[in-house]
Amino acid sequence: MTMTDPSQKALVPFVSVANMMRLINHIGVETMLRELSEYIEQDFKRWDAFDKTPRVASHSEVGVIELMPTSDGQAYGFKYVNGHPGNTRDGLQTVTAFGLLADVATGYPVLVTEMTILTALRTAATSALAGRYLTPQNARVMAMIGNGAQSEFQCLAFHALCGVTEVRLFDIDPAATAKVVRNLAQSGLTVVPCDSPEQAMEGAQIITTCTADKAYATILTDNMVGSGVHINAIGGDCPGKTELAPAILHRADIFVEYPEQTRIEGEIQQLAPDHPVTELWQVMTGQAQGRRNAQAITLFDSVGFATEDFSALRYIRDRIKGTDMYQPLDLLADPDDPRDLFGMVRRAGGLCE
Amino acid sequence: MTMTDPSQKALVPFVSVANMMRLINHIGVETMLRELSEYIEQDFKRWDAFDKTPRVASHSEVGVIELMPTSDGQAYGFKYVNGHPGNTRDGLQTVTAFGLLADVATGYPVLVTEMTILTALRTAATSALAGRYLTPQNARVMAMIGNGAQSEFQCLAFHALCGVTEVRLFDIDPAATAKVVRNLAQSGLTVVPCDSPEQAMEGAQIITTCTADKAYATILTDNMVGSGVHINAIGGDCPGKTELAPAILHRADIFVEYPEQTRIEGEIQQLAPDHPVTELWQVMTGQAQGRRNAQAITLFDSVGFATEDFSALRYIRDRIKGTDMYQPLDLLADPDDPRDLFGMVRRAGGLCE
Repeated sequence: MTMTDPSQKALVPFVSVANMMRLINHIGVETMLRELSEYIEQDFKRWDAFDKTPRVASHSEVGVIELMPTSDGQAYGFKYVNGHPGNTRDGLQTVTAFGLLADVATGYPVLVTEMTILTALRTAATSALAGRYLTPQNARVMAMIGNGAQSEFQCLAFHALCGVTEVRLFDIDPAATAKVVRNLAQSGLTVVPCDSPEQAMEGAQIITTCTADKAYATILTDNMVGSGVHINAIGGDCPGKTELAPAILHRADIFVEYPEQTRIEGEIQQLAPDHPVTELWQVMTGQAQGRRNAQAITLFDSVGFATEDFSALRYIRDRIKGTDMYQPLDLLADPDDPRDLFGMVRRAGGLCE
Repeated sequence: MTMTDPSQKALVPFVSVANMMRLINHIGVETMLRELSEYIEQDFKRWDAFDKTPRVASHSEVGVIELMPTSDGQAYGFKYVNGHPGNTRDGLQTVTAFGLLADVATGYPVLVTEMTILTALRTAATSALAGRYLTPQNARVMAMIGNGAQSEFQCLAFHALCGVTEVRLFDIDPAATAKVVRNLAQSGLTVVPCDSPEQAMEGAQIITTCTADKAYATILTDNMVGSGVHINAIGGDCPGKTELAPAILHRADIFVEYPEQTRIEGEIQQLAPDHPVTELWQVMTGQAQGRRNAQAITLFDSVGFATEDFSALRYIRDRIKGTDMYQPLDLLADPDDPRDLFGMVRRAGGLCE
């Protein structure tokens, strides 16, 4: 080791996109969704342990860039994530993300990872985890409205965690639906492409909406939704972006991650600020009721909360141990004498010259 | 290019610690401090262009982890930074940092860089920039109280930007002082190690305090500070951490970066919330007066603001162009079809198997 080689303390494990894909294919998507959901459930069940704050958003006319920090006192995590609906027109992702986990005791990062793919996984794992508490008994059919980047993950999560056997697909773009049909061909799911939202919802006990327009859209109207269904609403996740007609919300028992955030970003931004909602963690700990009866309409108004990313970061930190699916990132300056930052820079120059 | 190779859009330029040190030694520390100060001044002078918010802090008993975001509408930047005074006991840095710059139009990151070293540079560049507006005419001697990781950068910045020719050093640990003496031996500065703060301040027109204890400390008492000096107070930068006796503050004209943040974190947390202060950007644009006369005591109550990191990120983005002093980081998942995230993962697995 020469003097310019970084010390071990300075190296942060980094999971690149390529390594995340290797990890997923190594573990298997459905196994990973199940394992992720366990980490997410653990953290929901110790809700009070977390330092919670609504995400820090920087809005522009074309999108949003957000930082989502949280801590349980031992570890600190945050995610950087953007949302730019117009990006797909230019061949870019609507949502990209990366995240970091750090040690609270020292402030040193212990993991940096891509989170574009990981976010799709954690969102699907959270949806299906909520589904385990909220879907009607023996729900086997799910309508998947919106067949974008997250839809396969949603379908597989409900398959793995909730016993869904059939997914009925609709998208305003048939090419998106065809893509999902192709991608799920070997999944064990019965996959039915549909020509309308109504057709997709035929016989479905679970309705997942995941569309991308940043606008008050009405993907589901009131008369499309009968009793005894569970709605998993993914797409309404920022101010001005909703998918459901308000009348549906008034008929539904509404479950949310973190009310302070969901009232700003979720479907319930359309409702009065004191409209009753139930917090998901309370359902998981048994402090609140989930589904009341077979006829109820339950709605998981998902916006994605920082603790879910924290759980996902914990999971990846644990899961890469002993593997070669990460690389050391020379991110932290760590001189032998912590007070001698300048000397470290100067000596590096001496050896370079 | 195979299908698992990331596309160009997915690759974010990354400046490691090793490359940052190469860049500094390539440009030269004093040149870099001057160039950095120009970027910082440009951004202070367009203060209204920035989306400003106090940093998002996560405090624990042993330290703090902070995110400092800002945007000018074109670019978005944030810095991750910790402050753990006890870290040096374990051979770790008190402060480590990294940062990111992104394109507001797409939300895609365009730079990830180490910022432990860069923060020391931007802090020193900001101090000396403020000094250009506030120090007494013909100030040539600076007392440097606290000889830790930032002190050499402060000395060189005042040398490069303010014409300081002599620095007088004091630290409670003589080894720290000896380190600075060693590191500045070839700098062109006259370097005088001193046995007390009082001795360090003999004949000094500029007093820089940069100590690290997270406590209400009194590095400078009232009777130590005569008229006609400029105080550059670096170390008081979080709640409960100050360096100056309140009586000094009452005698001084106080200049700050962003009052909303400085009143929480700076020396002025010891004063009434409406105590008059002057914003640095207003001095730079000529809207407010800097030094009133030769007798005034001026105080720059530095806490470090997000725009300064933004300026530093802009500078690094521009400065690495055409060099090999960065590496591509496979941080963003970028499938050929943005909606086909799942297919990208699946195909990567197919090629791996």
